[in-house]
Amino acid sequence: MTTSTALLTDRYELTMLAASLRDGTAFRPSVFELFSRRLSGGRRFGVVAGTGRLLSLLRDFRFGDDELRFLRDQNVVDASSIAHLEDYRFSGTIRGYREGELYFPGSPILTVEGTFADAVVLETLALSVLNHDSAVATAASRMSIAAGERPLAEMGSRRAAERSAVAAARAAYIAGFGATSNLEAGRSWGIPTMGTAAHSWTLLHDSEEEAFRSQVESMGTGTTLLVDTYDIRTGVETAIRVAGTELGGVRIDSGDLPIVAGDVRAQLDELGATSTRITVTSDLDEYAIAALAASPVDAYGVGTSVVTGSGYPTASMVYKLVARQDATGSWIGVAKASADKASHSGRKAAFRTLVDGVATAETVVVSDGFEELDTAAEHPDGRPLQVTFVEAGDIDASYEGVEGTAAARAHHLRVREELPVRALALSKSDPAIPTVYVEAD
Amino acid sequence: MTTSTALLTDRYELTMLAASLRDGTAFRPSVFELFSRRLSGGRRFGVVAGTGRLLSLLRDFRFGDDELRFLRDQNVVDASSIAHLEDYRFSGTIRGYREGELYFPGSPILTVEGTFADAVVLETLALSVLNHDSAVATAASRMSIAAGERPLAEMGSRRAAERSAVAAARAAYIAGFGATSNLEAGRSWGIPTMGTAAHSWTLLHDSEEEAFRSQVESMGTGTTLLVDTYDIRTGVETAIRVAGTELGGVRIDSGDLPIVAGDVRAQLDELGATSTRITVTSDLDEYAIAALAASPVDAYGVGTSVVTGSGYPTASMVYKLVARQDATGSWIGVAKASADKASHSGRKAAFRTLVDGVATAETVVVSDGFEELDTAAEHPDGRPLQVTFVEAGDIDASYEGVEGTAAARAHHLRVREELPVRALALSKSDPAIPTVYVEAD
Repeated sequence: MTTSTALLTDRYELTMLAASLRDGTAFRPSVFELFSRRLSGGRRFGVVAGTGRLLSLLRDFRFGDDELRFLRDQNVVDASSIAHLEDYRFSGTIRGYREGELYFPGSPILTVEGTFADAVVLETLALSVLNHDSAVATAASRMSIAAGERPLAEMGSRRAAERSAVAAARAAYIAGFGATSNLEAGRSWGIPTMGTAAHSWTLLHDSEEEAFRSQVESMGTGTTLLVDTYDIRTGVETAIRVAGTELGGVRIDSGDLPIVAGDVRAQLDELGATSTRITVTSDLDEYAIAALAASPVDAYGVGTSVVTGSGYPTASMVYKLVARQDATGSWIGVAKASADKASHSGRKAAFRTLVDGVATAETVVVSDGFEELDTAAEHPDGRPLQVTFVEAGDIDASYEGVEGTAAARAHHLRVREELPVRALALSKSDPAIPTVYVEAD
Repeated sequence: MTTSTALLTDRYELTMLAASLRDGTAFRPSVFELFSRRLSGGRRFGVVAGTGRLLSLLRDFRFGDDELRFLRDQNVVDASSIAHLEDYRFSGTIRGYREGELYFPGSPILTVEGTFADAVVLETLALSVLNHDSAVATAASRMSIAAGERPLAEMGSRRAAERSAVAAARAAYIAGFGATSNLEAGRSWGIPTMGTAAHSWTLLHDSEEEAFRSQVESMGTGTTLLVDTYDIRTGVETAIRVAGTELGGVRIDSGDLPIVAGDVRAQLDELGATSTRITVTSDLDEYAIAALAASPVDAYGVGTSVVTGSGYPTASMVYKLVARQDATGSWIGVAKASADKASHSGRKAAFRTLVDGVATAETVVVSDGFEELDTAAEHPDGRPLQVTFVEAGDIDASYEGVEGTAAARAHHLRVREELPVRALALSKSDPAIPTVYVEAD
């Protein structure tokens, strides 16, 4: 696989680039904004994720010989565009919401400023990363809230394309999950990994007892034994007979979990295995987790539903030109006019308005101009939501990699505390706080 | 990004590997089967996709220094397992359904044979690729059927994680789409790419007319102009005034499409632009495409719904141990017993039973043993569904790359012709043909 990310791009971005080089508009200073008109699925808040990944992918957004040859061979763009792309390196500014931050309809999640030619080509890559990762993080945060203090592990790699699986593990971790089954996510992003054995382990052996005995010998009595390959009651009995009452845990991957968990807890307690933990992993989503709150479950493993955004596998973020200069160098706010896809023109600054530490509004200050919006002066009572990720092409590395991922997780858990109580309910509703637009002075 | 795919793996596969090396079961000849217990969403057939990608990823499924260091540092497995993984290269056999083939509940889509140690570690990678790509292909095939002879382009990259977007473009192409907006998909898989301009192009210019004029100058009168940035009627009028009646096409990305398409066609015809084509791209799925069948639409562009599997972003394929040898070298068919996740043990051969060229059943011949199932002898009236992708570790390159992708597309379009008419309806139903299990002699 090539390391260049430059062709992870819709063709029309490069045909627009070529046409703008031809007519001279390529170098008009422009402001693109990445935002969402709505929250998918009646969610009460969204969670921004992917920013740290996007910054690293931006480092590799260069057109090398292979990429240029393809564009030339396929007649995607003309020779002067090829020459332009040969030297392309994003040299503008990117500001936006910190990764892990909450967002609401209209939140200016990412603002990309530069020439039209510089900024237009990042549309697909930015949306691909943020739409996917934010969809997963938003679902994951709801699950994390539903799980409360109980540990939550992501184990959905098999239900996501192989590289998205790694991104999904990361997004879930940022949104409050504690671990992942995915080893690459452990290596790339410093996420704790977990996992012991599948049903094939039991089936490989001539008896469940032999499988359990071998597992305990290899992994120690602290391991978790999967007890539902044949009969759960027999499985639990065998598990404790083999491992003793110090067995770390049992895992249940099928059945009516509230009933089964209660039965297994009673059986373990009867056998004296009072500290043996119960992990459940069968088709969980935020609703199933909430329904298990009163059951004696010690940990959850979530697969399909978290990596597919629990019914909403993509956020509905868009990347729109909101302001640009004209030929005279004056700034003009621009927006598409169609009724069903309207958007707010102009450069924006955003604040979370707080009253006694509780969020009451998403305040978006709008300016048609390009002047720096003084955040403190504009909104003294709000928490400023935007930071600078890229300044004149220089990427701030502190938002990337293992460090950036850990910081995003900490930020998410911190800002989630600001939400009003009604934001934590799982049912469909309006956004937890309104988005309020204010004209800049 | 590392090229090794070996850590795109759930941790438990390696902990099982380590425990099996310790107790000697690692080298038991084993048969794993990848199949689906059901078709998602009441679909009438599924489409296998991803196999060609999986084979290429399998070539890079090697544990290099970086991967081994991570496993050692994190204590994922012990030293003797590290030594084993250092030399790991899949040396078994993989047979299965050709890419593009249809599948039904229980179809043995992929059969991985080798030692337990060889085959168990491929679980996550195989499922990640096939679940994702097949979900997209299944949705795409329905859209392709709904579109009939009208061209269909995939343009959903922004609604899928950046690398899944490329895989999704490929899966959609295999299932009947004719083009993609994604340039990397064009380069990697030889898929035709398309695209001209976004709303930002119009907004960049001081008037819609200037934007159209520049686009036509750059891309020729055969281009497609996006006419809904401001007012569609004015946009169409401007488009024809600027480009003339030879304009290639107009694109509409908003509004009530059946009404708008009719209005735009009438307007174009009045203006004399009778051959100017209408492309629509606003939130289409198979149902919206079907609803436009009687409207004067010339081409469809589909985004979100195709790359997210139109409501079912993952197939429900699983990877299960179905047969293995015991310590004496005898074959044993194995299966999990739980009621809600039952499966059929044993090695399988599969045939599409045809009557007058129309599929009537998915016939699965089951053998608990390991002997070669003689396909012709077992089922003279059926079309054998399995081919050999990997023989003793040697990967058949004809299924990979651009060539393999084109062959998969041709195969899909050919075998789709075998479906009974009822399979082509979009409403939820049972599978179009039953799966019939037959015991081998």
